[in-house]
Amino acid sequence: MQFEKIVSKDNKLIKKIKKLVSSASYRREENAFVLEGLRLVLDAAKNGYAIETLVVSESFLEANGGLKEVQSSKQRVVLPDSLFKTLSDTVSPQGILCVCNMPKTILDPLKINKGKYLILENTQDPANLGAIARTAEALGIDGLIVSLKGCDPFSPKAQRAAMGALVRFPIYLSYDIIEDTRKLKDKGFSIYASVVSDADCEITKVSYDAPSAVIIGNEANGVTEQLKAVANSKITIPMSGRAESLNAAAAAAIIIWEMVK
Amino acid sequence: MQFEKIVSKDNKLIKKIKKLVSSASYRREENAFVLEGLRLVLDAAKNGYAIETLVVSESFLEANGGLKEVQSSKQRVVLPDSLFKTLSDTVSPQGILCVCNMPKTILDPLKINKGKYLILENTQDPANLGAIARTAEALGIDGLIVSLKGCDPFSPKAQRAAMGALVRFPIYLSYDIIEDTRKLKDKGFSIYASVVSDADCEITKVSYDAPSAVIIGNEANGVTEQLKAVANSKITIPMSGRAESLNAAAAAAIIIWEMVK
Repeated sequence: MQFEKIVSKDNKLIKKIKKLVSSASYRREENAFVLEGLRLVLDAAKNGYAIETLVVSESFLEANGGLKEVQSSKQRVVLPDSLFKTLSDTVSPQGILCVCNMPKTILDPLKINKGKYLILENTQDPANLGAIARTAEALGIDGLIVSLKGCDPFSPKAQRAAMGALVRFPIYLSYDIIEDTRKLKDKGFSIYASVVSDADCEITKVSYDAPSAVIIGNEANGVTEQLKAVANSKITIPMSGRAESLNAAAAAAIIIWEMVK
Repeated sequence: MQFEKIVSKDNKLIKKIKKLVSSASYRREENAFVLEGLRLVLDAAKNGYAIETLVVSESFLEANGGLKEVQSSKQRVVLPDSLFKTLSDTVSPQGILCVCNMPKTILDPLKINKGKYLILENTQDPANLGAIARTAEALGIDGLIVSLKGCDPFSPKAQRAAMGALVRFPIYLSYDIIEDTRKLKDKGFSIYASVVSDADCEITKVSYDAPSAVIIGNEANGVTEQLKAVANSKITIPMSGRAESLNAAAAAAIIIWEMVK
């Protein structure tokens, strides 16, 4: 396997990768994102992502050789360790990352006709988004619908927190979550907004037979009034303790569990 | 409110605080720990913790004055911002921390006679420990029993992840979790070990009537064989997805939910 050597920080590819790591709008513009770390790169290859570029550090290449699992990558480059480190989002980089195309299938929530989904409205913390994707994958709902006004599921932080779940699991992105949720409802989906107060009923009192979707709101502000208005009903997790303590990822875990069990 | 000014990094108190922040064994030796940030300090004061020392930065004191809520602290010191920063566990410190005595009530799991508990056996990641404490507090079980071979619930990372739950919520520490769990069982507690495989039944199939306790194992290795042998039965969260993805905090959220609902 041939690797092209790049040594200059001013190289066009190096600049592009840096921008893909830091900017959500650039990722959208280029329709590409970066996955760092061996496990994520292998997951991407295994799950049929189109890998544009495979980037390794000199140390990584020396220790591991080329990766036959990622043979399909169009371009392969090797960087001095010090240059690789400038691209990395971690303190001690493993020395491998890849640039992937965003899969086209994730861009239209309206292609969904059946199944059980979680709708994440403006989730703020990429660690929560990643954690929720892990739980959704483990328990086996059909996908996450993510509003693009929240944190970007293609950011390095979200990808790392998801431990590969955001690559392996169906993620549907929505530019207009209010409108898209309304369309899902029109298609026959039962839509539930999870709230802390003023609920219509507890989460155990509704049916999650497919097709259905539960909305998890923003960590600080909850589900917006507009999206609540779209929902069939507002549901809540009854809490006998200190309700403000339950964070979005824990609430999502409990709700997903009720949806699938 | 009088504040003593300290400017030297070689001051005895400064050295002690640094060591309390970094060393679990020193915290145990001194029977003290550090809480950083306004919210945690106020939570500690409100929940009756004995506050040894209140430490603020010059900027904090200028902006906020003394804190009347923490009047009970035996000692109050103010540091130049640069010196305060050397004690802080965060990148942008708020400029307030306190040294608390560890409350005596948390040191004996054998004082527990009734209620519902989670037993954390060798939890490795302080972020998980903190997240689990938050969920346990929100949903209202009676306490966490934490084996001291895992990460330290008095570490700054665990305290920060818990958003105050580790200060407000009953935490029982165990030096010998096998022996202590056996004694709880002898006292009439139903003990359940949560496992990923080889379970006796699903988590919905057992009764969590008090007194009962569910064991959450170490993130990498699960519940130890010795502790499984103590449990009345092994229970599992049925998963139709990719089981390895469910992390300890999400699993704990689902289990606590089943215990209280």
